[in-house]
Amino acid sequence: MRTTNELRRCAKDVFGSALKAIEPARLIKENVKLKGQTLEVAGRRYDLREVRDVFLIAAGKASAPMAQALEGILGERLSGGIVVVKYGYGLRIKRARVIEAGHPVPDRRSVAAANAVLKLASDAGKQDLVFCLLSGGGSSLLCGLPEGVTIGDLKSLTRLLLASGADIKEMNTVRKHVSLVNGGRLARALYPARVINLIISDVVGNRLDMIASGPTLPNETTFEDAVEVLSKYNLIKKAPRSICSYLERGVRGIDDGGPGKNDPCFKHSQTHLLGSNVLALEAAEERAEALGLNCIILSSSITGEAREVAAVLVSVAKEVLANGRPVPRPACILAGGETTVTLNGRGMGGRSQEFALAAALGLEGSSHHIVVLSGGTDGTDGPTDADGAVVDTNTCRRARKKFQLDAADYLSRNDSYHFFQKAGGHLFTGPTRTNVMDIMMALIG
Amino acid sequence: MRTTNELRRCAKDVFGSALKAIEPARLIKENVKLKGQTLEVAGRRYDLREVRDVFLIAAGKASAPMAQALEGILGERLSGGIVVVKYGYGLRIKRARVIEAGHPVPDRRSVAAANAVLKLASDAGKQDLVFCLLSGGGSSLLCGLPEGVTIGDLKSLTRLLLASGADIKEMNTVRKHVSLVNGGRLARALYPARVINLIISDVVGNRLDMIASGPTLPNETTFEDAVEVLSKYNLIKKAPRSICSYLERGVRGIDDGGPGKNDPCFKHSQTHLLGSNVLALEAAEERAEALGLNCIILSSSITGEAREVAAVLVSVAKEVLANGRPVPRPACILAGGETTVTLNGRGMGGRSQEFALAAALGLEGSSHHIVVLSGGTDGTDGPTDADGAVVDTNTCRRARKKFQLDAADYLSRNDSYHFFQKAGGHLFTGPTRTNVMDIMMALIG
Repeated sequence: MRTTNELRRCAKDVFGSALKAIEPARLIKENVKLKGQTLEVAGRRYDLREVRDVFLIAAGKASAPMAQALEGILGERLSGGIVVVKYGYGLRIKRARVIEAGHPVPDRRSVAAANAVLKLASDAGKQDLVFCLLSGGGSSLLCGLPEGVTIGDLKSLTRLLLASGADIKEMNTVRKHVSLVNGGRLARALYPARVINLIISDVVGNRLDMIASGPTLPNETTFEDAVEVLSKYNLIKKAPRSICSYLERGVRGIDDGGPGKNDPCFKHSQTHLLGSNVLALEAAEERAEALGLNCIILSSSITGEAREVAAVLVSVAKEVLANGRPVPRPACILAGGETTVTLNGRGMGGRSQEFALAAALGLEGSSHHIVVLSGGTDGTDGPTDADGAVVDTNTCRRARKKFQLDAADYLSRNDSYHFFQKAGGHLFTGPTRTNVMDIMMALIG
Repeated sequence: MRTTNELRRCAKDVFGSALKAIEPARLIKENVKLKGQTLEVAGRRYDLREVRDVFLIAAGKASAPMAQALEGILGERLSGGIVVVKYGYGLRIKRARVIEAGHPVPDRRSVAAANAVLKLASDAGKQDLVFCLLSGGGSSLLCGLPEGVTIGDLKSLTRLLLASGADIKEMNTVRKHVSLVNGGRLARALYPARVINLIISDVVGNRLDMIASGPTLPNETTFEDAVEVLSKYNLIKKAPRSICSYLERGVRGIDDGGPGKNDPCFKHSQTHLLGSNVLALEAAEERAEALGLNCIILSSSITGEAREVAAVLVSVAKEVLANGRPVPRPACILAGGETTVTLNGRGMGGRSQEFALAAALGLEGSSHHIVVLSGGTDGTDGPTDADGAVVDTNTCRRARKKFQLDAADYLSRNDSYHFFQKAGGHLFTGPTRTNVMDIMMALIG
């Protein structure tokens, strides 16, 4: 039997292994190799003697370390590129221009970045090869404004969508259709250059055209879908008029909404999903097994209200205790995905901290050692400096006895951050410059 | 690969096997054997030559078929007994008196039943053996009123508790302390007779003293706990004054709140848990495996908001599809427990139907055959004649195209019953006269 302290250490260790597996530089190095004039990308070979220039375009939270690692591999063979990152996320990259821009709400620099990328695309010819390095966050970093739409309009739209409760797929369905870059339009601009998409997914179910609003992937949505999302969240009247009339023109067929999968512009393009929640979970599983824990991965596409999903994870942990199922003790139950929090209070927190606090309440009174960890792979949880928290069967009791904290009260006010600030248990990971959603786990001693 | 129709048939078959495993008569016959003068109960032997009279006391939804089966085994060796059932649940039992009483709100007959049971208990002596057959529902069927408390008071209290959102453990913590029978008090009245408790559990985690408010089991709660529950749900001022003052007298130590586990009255008593959600799940697993499905039981103690738990089950089903985890296809993911529904609309339904409807929405658009079934083991779901529902990936689309039904709208109004009434998919099991909570499953073809 493992003590609570041992389990807490194991949980952090397992989480650390998950994060390591999705480091952008590592993913690039594992998947891209250059031997002489032969480039190997995720097992597929390219003869660089047939290629004139190699460019890179990178957009998203992970774009800087992905680009830096790719430059390290390609060296002088890289002719140039554009790397668009969130403010403060820039890294030194010799052969590419690094542009910092607004996220999650775009700004003028996002427009400048889109224009620079479109310029590069139009310069790239048939004999050129363009790496497109895409990760979550790209939608707001690259904003090619359609005629009549201002950056102010796009900022308003983004703020409305962020506050609406629309999920990332719904948001990006709209953003794809108010753009000269997204929804495959960049692929069209790049044509006839060869394109290799390397992607780190922050989307449940890894729908590739949704990541960074899919600038170089076939568009699987329509103007009608975009209008439907606005209508679903009652945004038709609130959204800027320029955007609504642009979408209406689209519905009437004046624009095609971005190239579909049979469009010739995708003929010379390959796409590789390098990093995802599944990869992080598999690394976590491997580490947990090395630590002697019996492992099971429930799902990499968990969604739902954080506190409810936490209750389900706790009930599985209790089943391990009661009946040695679904795996015998000592056990590690893993899950990944992205939960949501419905705000009822004015507290401070994030979905991972709220998950952990709800789990602590569910674990209270259990006679056996159980630890639950919940953390974001991007290193931050909500608008806080923490990334999540680790709790055990004694967390609530200790908080009550030692600090007079009522965990249920903190949860009801969505104030998980302040609970853990006072009671201890926060995970402080710091920005990881990558994102494959969240990891949750229960360890049973 | 299995078609949707095959999977629907499998799901119903698996659910049927789960129900069969927890039939009260079957559980009694499997666990109680009489060979000459030797009585064997769940592997433990009793020499009936040392026993004068054998009595039975049965209370709960399953009491009539349990008692009938026990009478079938004991025959003339049974001297008498009292069987308390919900109105309409009576069966013919020759050697015991059958009393029908109020459920879920108690009535005068519940008081008469308690008095009859206490009379039998005081008549039973040291050489007698008393079987106590307990199942869910017993709390309201046996009401021994403490001094100063009327049946009207107890009805009011029960209605307040039922509407409060308190869970069954919290409700029974209160009910144990407003009773001359519950919380072990019947065990005290039975002493020094020998007692064999045979139990079918409808409580998450199978805490035995909570089933039927534990009339013959050690009381693990206190008057303070009971007052705390009332206070948690703001019922102190709303509850009948007679009950509050009785509880206050208890807190001051005038009553002991029922015998604890070291009380001598439990010296000659044995307790066997015959049926539980785990047993139903294991039978379901066995049947699913016989049907060629790879099985996993997630938990037998699932709690939480029905639609949220449904989303988690769907996400596990999608993981099976995407990555062959936690088990490869064709698969059956099983879970059991008792979810809750927070009412937002004025629709009609129950937790199992709401679970199924939420699952149908989560499954929509999946390209593969997946079926979800959710049903109550007591055969009824909420205040409806249905027991749950079976859905698949095409349920919402078919309802929309064929019947112009918007599944999301029905779910938002908690109107799952009318959705399935129009779209099809209801499970009609009919009362099973037993209850081990609910079963949910996802089958992936």
